[in-house]
Amino acid sequence: MRMVDLIEKKRDGKELSKEEIDFIIKNYTNGDIPDYQMSAFAMAVFFQDMTTVERANFTMAMVESGDQIDLSAIEGIKVDKHSTGGVGDTTTLVLAPLVAALDVPVAKMSGRGLGHTGGTIDKLEAVEGFHVEITNEEFISLVNKNKVAVIGQSGNLTPADKKLYGLRDVTATVNSIPLIASSIMSKKIAAGADAIVLDVKTGAGAFMKTVEEAEELAKAMVGIGNAVGRNTMAVISDMSQPLGFAIGNALEIKEAIDTLKGQGPKDLEELCYVLGSHMVVLAGKASTHEEARQMLQEVIQNGKALEVFKTFLSAQGGDGSVVDSPEKLPQAKFVKDIPAKEDGYVSEIVANEIGTAAMILGAGRATKESEIDLAVGLMLRKKVGEQVSAGEALVTMYSNNEDTQAVVEKIYAAYSIRKEPVTAPPLVYKEIKE
Amino acid sequence: MRMVDLIEKKRDGKELSKEEIDFIIKNYTNGDIPDYQMSAFAMAVFFQDMTTVERANFTMAMVESGDQIDLSAIEGIKVDKHSTGGVGDTTTLVLAPLVAALDVPVAKMSGRGLGHTGGTIDKLEAVEGFHVEITNEEFISLVNKNKVAVIGQSGNLTPADKKLYGLRDVTATVNSIPLIASSIMSKKIAAGADAIVLDVKTGAGAFMKTVEEAEELAKAMVGIGNAVGRNTMAVISDMSQPLGFAIGNALEIKEAIDTLKGQGPKDLEELCYVLGSHMVVLAGKASTHEEARQMLQEVIQNGKALEVFKTFLSAQGGDGSVVDSPEKLPQAKFVKDIPAKEDGYVSEIVANEIGTAAMILGAGRATKESEIDLAVGLMLRKKVGEQVSAGEALVTMYSNNEDTQAVVEKIYAAYSIRKEPVTAPPLVYKEIKE
Repeated sequence: MRMVDLIEKKRDGKELSKEEIDFIIKNYTNGDIPDYQMSAFAMAVFFQDMTTVERANFTMAMVESGDQIDLSAIEGIKVDKHSTGGVGDTTTLVLAPLVAALDVPVAKMSGRGLGHTGGTIDKLEAVEGFHVEITNEEFISLVNKNKVAVIGQSGNLTPADKKLYGLRDVTATVNSIPLIASSIMSKKIAAGADAIVLDVKTGAGAFMKTVEEAEELAKAMVGIGNAVGRNTMAVISDMSQPLGFAIGNALEIKEAIDTLKGQGPKDLEELCYVLGSHMVVLAGKASTHEEARQMLQEVIQNGKALEVFKTFLSAQGGDGSVVDSPEKLPQAKFVKDIPAKEDGYVSEIVANEIGTAAMILGAGRATKESEIDLAVGLMLRKKVGEQVSAGEALVTMYSNNEDTQAVVEKIYAAYSIRKEPVTAPPLVYKEIKE
Repeated sequence: MRMVDLIEKKRDGKELSKEEIDFIIKNYTNGDIPDYQMSAFAMAVFFQDMTTVERANFTMAMVESGDQIDLSAIEGIKVDKHSTGGVGDTTTLVLAPLVAALDVPVAKMSGRGLGHTGGTIDKLEAVEGFHVEITNEEFISLVNKNKVAVIGQSGNLTPADKKLYGLRDVTATVNSIPLIASSIMSKKIAAGADAIVLDVKTGAGAFMKTVEEAEELAKAMVGIGNAVGRNTMAVISDMSQPLGFAIGNALEIKEAIDTLKGQGPKDLEELCYVLGSHMVVLAGKASTHEEARQMLQEVIQNGKALEVFKTFLSAQGGDGSVVDSPEKLPQAKFVKDIPAKEDGYVSEIVANEIGTAAMILGAGRATKESEIDLAVGLMLRKKVGEQVSAGEALVTMYSNNEDTQAVVEKIYAAYSIRKEPVTAPPLVYKEIKE
């Protein structure tokens, strides 16, 4: 088998066999297929796409290119949730304890992040003492005991995907549905998920700008998951404006606590119910989404979800008392409201501008070497559709630096205010199950 | 400027500016753009094509990536001929002295070849003593004196094309019209051509299998040539069967001598008149093709073309007397007719099979290291459309090895014979001038 022939086959729109795809991924991973052949192949895929069978084989070949996490010692169906990324997305922090409170095992492997705010681990480290440096044995035992634990990324997971992603990034082949879908799905599967709930974001603040694009990606991922025996479904949700109010690490922990108390932002709470009820059903703990939603509401109302969060934090060295006294979280030195300049209705909040404002404050990493300031960030006081009067706060800014001119400019650039009433966008557009 | 953005621009079907193309070629040649970006770019070009302006800029960027031959010291318009390759193509050997006999300067830079037979230089070396190791000054002085000289490839001509061609070969991006056309044209222009006559072959023995494909390539090259100020035209000619009778180095020299005497194969002679008359017109030596053709016929009839060939061979150390005594050319030990097995009409001679048969005999190089046997080869005794009786020779085989079973099998595999009369294919399909 020669790589040049396989590139040609894909270039000409033909379907590659499992053996051919295995050959490509195996030899690319070990270096026998050079980058210059793989990038030509990726560009051919960009133009010719892959069939569902090819996508599934490509995904599994990447899964098999490295280590796979064995979660079989954990009782129950391990349901993982993945979001395609956005601004101020606190769902993971809420959902983990929320579904764990219903005995859905949450064995989360997570990472630090580049971007507007930190990754899930960075956020959790805003709780004093919390750490993810635990052994695999401790991790499994914690999940079995508390139904939820988080471990840092370790081992050699999907090295083919890592290598290919780096190559796609510099060869204009990132934006290909089969390559995006197989990259995401390979990581979830290698991390041991039995079932997967996908939250595909759409809108100005997301990678997929339109509902149609998001649907295409969602269908690709659901197709792969179901083809390889992982029960998978996707929700297409709005990211035309940031989700919830908080953008920042400690601020999002606080927001997660509020939401677990039933006092969070309505959009965040609703999305958690939607995603959470799918997780509960896939885990076999409820037979309908209505039933699952009622169960989720119950563990919020009776305090069990919050209690699980507290136990989870304490079990990994964190100060669980923050759930009762959130003022123990890192506090910024300067807190300042950014007022509206005119009366009207908020018609747009460009999520990327808000995210960049938070990053300038220090909430996120611009490069791998950047240090995160866990205390800083933004709280949105007005969201799309809300009425606002001149002088009223649009955003509250939490900073550790007196010079925040660039941040304030970004915030004003993000907000549009109109005289006429504006309808808020829908939160969930579609659910994709096949 | 970043290469990744330029790949994306081409991927999305947008036109690249001259500055952007110069950036790509310059930085690819010097190694600042890695192969993995260039191969992704080439694949994007495969799918999105290039405009005529892009093709012209791409060609000139490759010309400017290395040395350019300065032929300004040669009087007259330097017209080069290029053939896209086929089997048994003796036109260059005939055309060079033929048009030189009409004072059209032929300053030929030529190479050795991989493939069925040697390149032009290999063939000429069948004449004892002939060599191309001459200085640039000798070369120019010989062309001014005799109107024809051949020099070996020297200097650093179109290094960008060399590098890119090697990359395309292993990334399934050879078969792209703008890349093929710019590759050919950059070499002709760097070698100093003022005007160019292209012989684009079509049929089973050619790279372009159909007339439509050949026409597309011809139009691409003519478009580039005329866009960069080189008067260019193309002839689309048949390569569904080998051209002429001879396939082999000394055999083709003999065939060229026969043709210059007016005793060559009719198809070869006719194609030389067609291509030659265009060269004579582009060189400004005749105003119509009819006039040019008459002039060419005259220098064949009066022996001047043959005399120029003799002078040319002698001037570069060769034994010019071969034109009168072709038996002085290298002779094979074994000469054997391959007889038809049945009565009928020749309906097909698969050119590639015949070419491979000649290569197995030793007439061509399979790898750069192979040595060529100048004496061996094949003479076709029957061509498509001709009647043949069982036992009559289809081909005469010239070999230096007694074991020729594989060659004979290839010859029989190449020939198809039918009971019904067969019409020979046309020799010239089209002429492309813009």
